[in-house]
Amino acid sequence: MSLKLYVIGCGSATPIGQRISSAFALKKENEFFLVDCSEGAQMQLKPYGIRMQKISRVFISHLHGDHYFGLIGLLSSLHLFGRTEPIHVYGHAVLKKIIDLQMKAGNTTLSYPLCFHTIKSHKHALIYEDDEIKVETFPLIHSIPTNGFVFREKSKNRNLKKDFIADYNPSVEWIQRLKAGEDFVDGTGNHIENQMITTPSSYQPKSFAYCSDTVYTESILPYIQGVDLLYHEATFMDNMKDVARDKLHATASEAATIAKAANVKALLIGHYSARYASLEPLLQEARAIFPATIAAEEGLVLDV
Amino acid sequence: MSLKLYVIGCGSATPIGQRISSAFALKKENEFFLVDCSEGAQMQLKPYGIRMQKISRVFISHLHGDHYFGLIGLLSSLHLFGRTEPIHVYGHAVLKKIIDLQMKAGNTTLSYPLCFHTIKSHKHALIYEDDEIKVETFPLIHSIPTNGFVFREKSKNRNLKKDFIADYNPSVEWIQRLKAGEDFVDGTGNHIENQMITTPSSYQPKSFAYCSDTVYTESILPYIQGVDLLYHEATFMDNMKDVARDKLHATASEAATIAKAANVKALLIGHYSARYASLEPLLQEARAIFPATIAAEEGLVLDV
Repeated sequence: MSLKLYVIGCGSATPIGQRISSAFALKKENEFFLVDCSEGAQMQLKPYGIRMQKISRVFISHLHGDHYFGLIGLLSSLHLFGRTEPIHVYGHAVLKKIIDLQMKAGNTTLSYPLCFHTIKSHKHALIYEDDEIKVETFPLIHSIPTNGFVFREKSKNRNLKKDFIADYNPSVEWIQRLKAGEDFVDGTGNHIENQMITTPSSYQPKSFAYCSDTVYTESILPYIQGVDLLYHEATFMDNMKDVARDKLHATASEAATIAKAANVKALLIGHYSARYASLEPLLQEARAIFPATIAAEEGLVLDV
Repeated sequence: MSLKLYVIGCGSATPIGQRISSAFALKKENEFFLVDCSEGAQMQLKPYGIRMQKISRVFISHLHGDHYFGLIGLLSSLHLFGRTEPIHVYGHAVLKKIIDLQMKAGNTTLSYPLCFHTIKSHKHALIYEDDEIKVETFPLIHSIPTNGFVFREKSKNRNLKKDFIADYNPSVEWIQRLKAGEDFVDGTGNHIENQMITTPSSYQPKSFAYCSDTVYTESILPYIQGVDLLYHEATFMDNMKDVARDKLHATASEAATIAKAANVKALLIGHYSARYASLEPLLQEARAIFPATIAAEEGLVLDV
């Protein structure tokens, strides 16, 4: 497996020219998790190589329009294109009411099951898990209830040693159990420790943390510690630190300070105020503190 | 005065490539009336030369997403750009609930007054009038309550004859009254008929009718009779007449038949099904019945 992050939109409050507001897609095997979904996001999927019907889950950080106004259009288009697979939406409770009211106004019964999962704004919680990945949410500090998300691949299965297979010819069921780390017991009750007959996978599981809108806060460090890629908003530069504090946003320096303290491998900044025509000064400011910083731009695709 | 119609979007259910769903702007002097507002409409305003803050009124025909999903983003952006002038929104009652719920979810108190005017789906009614224009709504026949709109300029003021001005030197107040058609009474009670001292304006008031989504119906003829420009949906071609009927949409032939029966000056078709990569066949079909047909395309600007 591998994780790829697609930047669909990385602007802040309002779309300006080609810069639309927050929307990201995380590719995992043959499916996409959408993370926030601003107005116009659905129109960028095809140009960026994201197949709409491969979106399985959507995570909405909070209910400021620049993070979710495109969701209703996406859900509507999936319906009009005849989707039958369920879609899972993770968001605050009011989002469900907003979707329901609009579907009812249009007299629309979706062609697919929409499974809504309510996230709690003040709680760190595991909200999704399968064989390959788990997703946790955690509180951010912003002007309305806002959540971050962290996506962590699980460890790969262990590899069986060839001599063990030759000697014992284990069943398919046993192979799976041994790969998952269980000890082996043969037909005569003979016990062999897992470490004797397997080697760990060389694959390093990847992780991505998403902090959409937040004031600078060290309270998030435990949740994002050591991730491979951290997205952290950087609405302003440090000379507007007071404005950032007032509006419960962060600066490029602050994003970098968090990245450094969390010992992440790389930092992706975004949610730029429209006043920054060039991203270079924001990038330079962040890199002075955390060199492995990348500036999000529409269409960018990163290996996590 | 003059009226200009800007085509912002003229697709149907879902945005496809550069073709976004229904959104139009009618320019009247130095202000714009928006007619339907699909997702992404706000992003097209600047490229098409429509100043966002010059939008004074928005008319929403019905609550299928392809006609209004862009409204909330537009209202939000107007707020974020610091608008203080009121904006007037005309739509069905549920639209107000949808706007309120989303504004509340984002903890947003708009920077400007939003004046909502509820339209009734089964009623022909005058919904707006000023010195220069009046706007009426009328029922269309579609799968949910849907309204058309007709925008009619008023007759221009009459012109005062020069010899009357020279002889009587009327006050500014009298000039306005005479231009509006009143008879003149001088200081001695002497009465002069308006027609003796004025000439009619040579300006022909213009009119634009908008029929967003509707099955073929002659019930709309009285409301759109003789308009200068009729926009009528043409989702399908005539070989899909049965599908059109089922889905309560119209064909290009049907739009042209209505245009002819209503004796309008020009027909603009749009709301094309995504199956039509080229608009030429739709246009030919309509022109066979009503030659003065134009196919809407994003970015087109028409003098009404």
